[in-house]
Amino acid sequence: MAGPGEFELIRRFFRRPAVPARAPLGIGDDCALIAPGDEGVLAVSTDMLVAGRHFFDDVDPEALGHKALAVNLSDLAAMGARPIGFTLALALPQADEAWLGAFARGLFALADAHGCELVGGDTTRGPLNLCITVFGSVPPAQALRRDRARDGDDLWVSGTLGAAAWALACRLQAGAWPDTGDAPLIRARGRLERPEPRVALGLALRGLAHAAIDLSDGLVGDIGHVLERSSAEAGVTLGACLEAAALPVDPALDGLPEPRRLELALAGGDDYELLFTAPASARGQVLDAGARIGLTLSRIGRIEAAAGLRLHDPHGRPIAFHARSFDHFR
Amino acid sequence: MAGPGEFELIRRFFRRPAVPARAPLGIGDDCALIAPGDEGVLAVSTDMLVAGRHFFDDVDPEALGHKALAVNLSDLAAMGARPIGFTLALALPQADEAWLGAFARGLFALADAHGCELVGGDTTRGPLNLCITVFGSVPPAQALRRDRARDGDDLWVSGTLGAAAWALACRLQAGAWPDTGDAPLIRARGRLERPEPRVALGLALRGLAHAAIDLSDGLVGDIGHVLERSSAEAGVTLGACLEAAALPVDPALDGLPEPRRLELALAGGDDYELLFTAPASARGQVLDAGARIGLTLSRIGRIEAAAGLRLHDPHGRPIAFHARSFDHFR
Repeated sequence: MAGPGEFELIRRFFRRPAVPARAPLGIGDDCALIAPGDEGVLAVSTDMLVAGRHFFDDVDPEALGHKALAVNLSDLAAMGARPIGFTLALALPQADEAWLGAFARGLFALADAHGCELVGGDTTRGPLNLCITVFGSVPPAQALRRDRARDGDDLWVSGTLGAAAWALACRLQAGAWPDTGDAPLIRARGRLERPEPRVALGLALRGLAHAAIDLSDGLVGDIGHVLERSSAEAGVTLGACLEAAALPVDPALDGLPEPRRLELALAGGDDYELLFTAPASARGQVLDAGARIGLTLSRIGRIEAAAGLRLHDPHGRPIAFHARSFDHFR
Repeated sequence: MAGPGEFELIRRFFRRPAVPARAPLGIGDDCALIAPGDEGVLAVSTDMLVAGRHFFDDVDPEALGHKALAVNLSDLAAMGARPIGFTLALALPQADEAWLGAFARGLFALADAHGCELVGGDTTRGPLNLCITVFGSVPPAQALRRDRARDGDDLWVSGTLGAAAWALACRLQAGAWPDTGDAPLIRARGRLERPEPRVALGLALRGLAHAAIDLSDGLVGDIGHVLERSSAEAGVTLGACLEAAALPVDPALDGLPEPRRLELALAGGDDYELLFTAPASARGQVLDAGARIGLTLSRIGRIEAAAGLRLHDPHGRPIAFHARSFDHFR
């Protein structure tokens, strides 16, 4: 193929002026060097995004650049870690410069907003695939692990739920995004394509939350991960009850029937909000933390020493529901 | 698809008993936690391998598991870093359990040999793609950077050159691996499919070598990287001269015509040997280091304060050559 080569592409789109940072050596050598700073250990997470599976082939590349990093920063947030840097591996069917320019714009806008430096990468030819590995720092004793929920903890969730899954369902049904301005769908599409990683919340929850996880598979599935890991860690069987009326269903879903709203909030994936548990004694501090960073935090239920997940109406009556998390191989 | 789901796959093939290690928290949370230990900073590298580009669709999955990690460990070796752990992101067209079992065997055999722990990952459906990010530790002042070559340095290379590229050329020409036992080709295929990362050499070269790089693009291209980066760093134009007779051409190529052997040694990629520079005063120590770890080290030339790469015969007469490195987008 004619056109710029691999090293030229890297230089043009992904090499940036050196800045004083915590990466003593960035892009261009066999490895990058990263110093964890004063906080002791590095938090590391990796996510792979595949065309046709995690995003549509006609995705806006700027939004894709944002989302590819956002889902990784969301993992740092769920750990209470402060972003340091990331690596990017990219398989591309062809070297499309307009596409790469827009992708890099979306990627670096979010990276800069979080002080997260691109430290290394790999570029190759192949079916479109993005793999980002992100690094953050966290004092080990303050890391927000998913296995630390305790009987009696409040269950909290940030922001709103269900909009991303609804946008995805609309798009799959229609086969394309509508041209006309449907305000709820425009809002929901923004939630799907440009999730905001809750990094500031993760930092604010250090020393406050017991357990935390980011919502990627859907609320029910992700609560299940917390319960499974925390039960094993505590040596007791933990479950949870949720108050349906407390679920912060996204306003984009206001026009939908109640059962559908509930289903999307419970089972819809891709919200990238934080789910966390904290002792009841910390309610005031949790609400203060949310107010400080300008993010609504909703207390949606409680951890209990009884297996399973229960959903209640405002009168305490059980609501039947069936919701599964998303699994790439089912 | 029927069959095991994503989380079950991860559990079955990639979760292993916890061992006391430098990853205080491994697979199963939003992030892994990695402590760099006493050595100060983390060395990080990422490589993406795509089916049909970096390996054949019919590749032995056990060899692929080995190679996917080996090319990453090779980057740590080239930095003088000690392996700590790695993340694995995997896109698979289907959940083939026999394939995954063999892949995991090859992967973990090499990981265990180097004390390198799988700390996290991601599994998704998609065209076969492997992305590994590897972490090692290195005292920053002892990191073997590619931009530290100096005028007058000896140029050294470990092991042998050219066999991997020859095996690849044979396979591409024949369209399949031959069934019959052609000893040189069997040896060469082993070099292509099961490169041995020179981790012990990287550690032995700390404080001894000036610059180092691993040979993935081919000797000429990789020397070019060292010269380009070191010239920029030193503010002088550096070049190199190579002695053709000193190149450690792999014995698998003994039956080939001399110009072809030279071409493969100079331009063939995928050798994953280390190329390094060291002051002439360190010759004895370099040879001792090679003897200690049982790896032949060949002094193949010298860094000079004159642009370009020159090749000489044993009588000092120039040999014309034309060799390019491999570029995924050319």
